[in-house]
Amino acid sequence: MSYVFPQKILFKHCDPAGIVFYPRYFEIINDCVEAFFDDVVGLPFEQLHGYGGVPTAEIRTTFKAPSRHGDRIVLVLDCLKVGRSSLDLSIVASQGDEVRFISHSTLVLVNDEGRPTHWPDTVKAKLIQQMKGAE
Amino acid sequence: MSYVFPQKILFKHCDPAGIVFYPRYFEIINDCVEAFFDDVVGLPFEQLHGYGGVPTAEIRTTFKAPSRHGDRIVLVLDCLKVGRSSLDLSIVASQGDEVRFISHSTLVLVNDEGRPTHWPDTVKAKLIQQMKGAE
Amino acid sequence: MSYVFPQKILFKHCDPAGIVFYPRYFEIINDCVEAFFDDVVGLPFEQLHGYGGVPTAEIRTTFKAPSRHGDRIVLVLDCLKVGRSSLDLSIVASQGDEVRFISHSTLVLVNDEGRPTHWPDTVKAKLIQQMKGAE
Amino acid sequence: MSYVFPQKILFKHCDPAGIVFYPRYFEIINDCVEAFFDDVVGLPFEQLHGYGGVPTAEIRTTFKAPSRHGDRIVLVLDCLKVGRSSLDLSIVASQGDEVRFISHSTLVLVNDEGRPTHWPDTVKAKLIQQMKGAE
Repeated sequence: MSYVFPQKILFKHCDPAGIVFYPRYFEIINDCVEAFFDDVVGLPFEQLHGYGGVPTAEIRTTFKAPSRHGDRIVLVLDCLKVGRSSLDLSIVASQGDEVRFISHSTLVLVNDEGRPTHWPDTVKAKLIQQMKGAE
Repeated sequence: MSYVFPQKILFKHCDPAGIVFYPRYFEIINDCVEAFFDDVVGLPFEQLHGYGGVPTAEIRTTFKAPSRHGDRIVLVLDCLKVGRSSLDLSIVASQGDEVRFISHSTLVLVNDEGRPTHWPDTVKAKLIQQMKGAE
Repeated sequence: MSYVFPQKILFKHCDPAGIVFYPRYFEIINDCVEAFFDDVVGLPFEQLHGYGGVPTAEIRTTFKAPSRHGDRIVLVLDCLKVGRSSLDLSIVASQGDEVRFISHSTLVLVNDEGRPTHWPDTVKAKLIQQMKGAE
Repeated sequence: MSYVFPQKILFKHCDPAGIVFYPRYFEIINDCVEAFFDDVVGLPFEQLHGYGGVPTAEIRTTFKAPSRHGDRIVLVLDCLKVGRSSLDLSIVASQGDEVRFISHSTLVLVNDEGRPTHWPDTVKAKLIQQMKGAE
């Protein structure tokens, strides 16, 4: 099942051309992933970062059309693949029918020393369930 | 010829885990590209944005190892391909022998209305020369 | 009447000490003011910036206690004084009974050329009403 | 003696009105203070945050004139008062003769538990010397 994260484009996101400055999109993507782990996975980042974290190992993003101040975009997050300590995600952001960007990323759960570590069973179950739901 | 952009990792770049928060890397990448257009290409963004801009159409980044507060990384930018209105870049960031991230991106020159437009001849010549110099 | 703006403290807001990096508070303050102009004043920034803007002329902030990742703070915005083209605001941010910061700022409405310009009558009425409501 | 910190206004600093978005100024102010502690005080933040930090307790800023993309501003930092664990600073930012903003802040040295702690003697000596030098 897809996770839906709405975001109004605010003044702080926009550049002198009046469109979103792309590094701000990555802040929005991170907010979306953080909300997903809180709302759906039951593993809020603020707890997670107590014993490690989920750094992004790789991210590929294609910007299809610019977003402007005041736009109300929606990010749709899907789990593509759940590894022992990794998670492949896709995020598609749109306003109405118009796609604004498509992003694929791989996250890795790491321990306090920054080493990859297994997803806890309950977390892994949630991620797989989320993936199955997407089918 | 490669363009070299040094960057000390500052307090503002780092997250609660004490490493660079990856959206900040994209600000650093943008600073590097902006400095390259100013120092080498002779087309400062502040002039360029008068009649358009060079938005990023696509970017793929692999994070190899974390950077910590106080690290002094060096970004090495190379021009891979110069199109009519596009530019393919690679940026490799390292501290000493350790690669921190590798990024490939495609920029597009657009006019005031956001439509792709040809590189001015002198700019294209500089970009191609930079590419040749890389050989 | 006070305007209330809740904000969860997210990963992106926090520094290596695990508390909010204070420049991020100013982004949150700006988000709060932007939401106030949208929700209450009926003058969304995205329209406002079509014919000028409301830059901040002065801001004084006292940080009383740190906020940590996962905290749920609430900003309470009050209009203190409405001038011809200016607006004095206070914002008090708390979690529960604990005040986190207190901020006083002066905004100025400017036209396309950056010159101070009168609040439109309907806007001024809303701002004054909001101030009266605070009594 | 004043500490001088030059900063070119970059694309990332600017908003849809083409001027610096004021929360970005606070990032620049923090960069300036961080560089001052590294270059002059001999207490780099990356070491300092190992055993605590220097959070900002209070900051008052007046924005005199807008800065635009491409401007080359200079921040001039002066130590006004050195307490047991606090430091009062002023920062004046200008381009040429035109002042862009004036900021007064109070920093406090805190230990790992976030409690105020005395400046180490050598640090305090440096700060006082810097203050005397300003006379």
